[in-house]
Amino acid sequence: MTDSGLRLYSYWRSSAAFRVRIAIHLKGLPCEIVPVDLVKGGGEQHSDAFKEINPQELVPVLIDGGRVIRQSLAIIEYIEEMYEGPSLLPATSRERARARGLAQLVACDIHPLNNTRVLKYLEREDNMPQLERERWIKHWITLGFDALEQMLTDSPSTGDFCEGDAPSIADCCLVPQVFNAQRWSLDLGPWPTIRRIHTTCMALPAFERARPENQIDAPKN
Amino acid sequence: MTDSGLRLYSYWRSSAAFRVRIAIHLKGLPCEIVPVDLVKGGGEQHSDAFKEINPQELVPVLIDGGRVIRQSLAIIEYIEEMYEGPSLLPATSRERARARGLAQLVACDIHPLNNTRVLKYLEREDNMPQLERERWIKHWITLGFDALEQMLTDSPSTGDFCEGDAPSIADCCLVPQVFNAQRWSLDLGPWPTIRRIHTTCMALPAFERARPENQIDAPKN
Repeated sequence: MTDSGLRLYSYWRSSAAFRVRIAIHLKGLPCEIVPVDLVKGGGEQHSDAFKEINPQELVPVLIDGGRVIRQSLAIIEYIEEMYEGPSLLPATSRERARARGLAQLVACDIHPLNNTRVLKYLEREDNMPQLERERWIKHWITLGFDALEQMLTDSPSTGDFCEGDAPSIADCCLVPQVFNAQRWSLDLGPWPTIRRIHTTCMALPAFERARPENQIDAPKN
Repeated sequence: MTDSGLRLYSYWRSSAAFRVRIAIHLKGLPCEIVPVDLVKGGGEQHSDAFKEINPQELVPVLIDGGRVIRQSLAIIEYIEEMYEGPSLLPATSRERARARGLAQLVACDIHPLNNTRVLKYLEREDNMPQLERERWIKHWITLGFDALEQMLTDSPSTGDFCEGDAPSIADCCLVPQVFNAQRWSLDLGPWPTIRRIHTTCMALPAFERARPENQIDAPKN
């Protein structure tokens, strides 16, 4: 247990856990990372021990003392309310609404469709072949990124980051989704603003530290 | 245009628009409802006029004076920050985190998988038969409701509503998802707490007014 008593159940390649890791590092909070292997033996998230922590059998889950906080965006809002450090939300209601809206575009309309459990269903229950599953994944990322790119280029509110010149909850969501797109070899050419913001984010230590390859449970090679 | 200048692009049967309608009525805000027919002629949300309002081609969208707010949960948080009236979020950070987490369980992990555009993809691109699509829908609702029911029964924080004794953002999400489950003839028997909270909510005028059948664009018969 660390000083602050924060403990994050995480998986190195989970997009939702990646979001929260970024937020925690942006805030500069000490946090113990507890890996949950979503692959080994059919998935540790389905174990009785983990179901006690999250009946949804999903990561991330944040433990703060005796509190159990679930759902990545709820965790980020909680961290923002509870802890000092750089703000994860912009200063005005208008800007906060925009940052949250961009975050939810990713968290509600792209990522849930390409989650491991969904791909497993399509494979096992629907017999969807690998190539068709890849087409499915790319379809939803493309649809989401096309809209996100337009919203970013259309608005004078976009700055170095998604909303203004400081990283926010929106960037916490954008970056893991770009990693996911790259994992599926999607050409990021059509989305120059998304690419630019991703590059700007990755130059910050908080994002670099949070990336999948830098996690204790990432494969060594 | 109403006094407060609020305008909501909505569709009577859209689960996400339903959430925002509940929130607006709970706050007691005057709001002009602008129907967007998601079905007619392939969907008005794909028109050039609507794409200007939302490049994602999805409802709901809230217009507040010159501001365009997208994504249902971001809209609810915005309304909460901007307007007086009963709070849509509980009083403490712990309770807010729980209410937001329950809301996101529905908004991120159930609803996006059963959205019209997803069902259309499965039908047209994947040739998934009607029966299989219904199995898909029921699978994700069941998985989500099983976890939600457990979280509601396990926690002393659950009251008359999802979090405590006042309706919150969590109930704004739960109720439309129950309507959706009923639309697909799902037996709600296994989820008595969800059913109880749904019934409690529907006794309130704000929920009743927001329900699909009471919308100006609902079919007359």
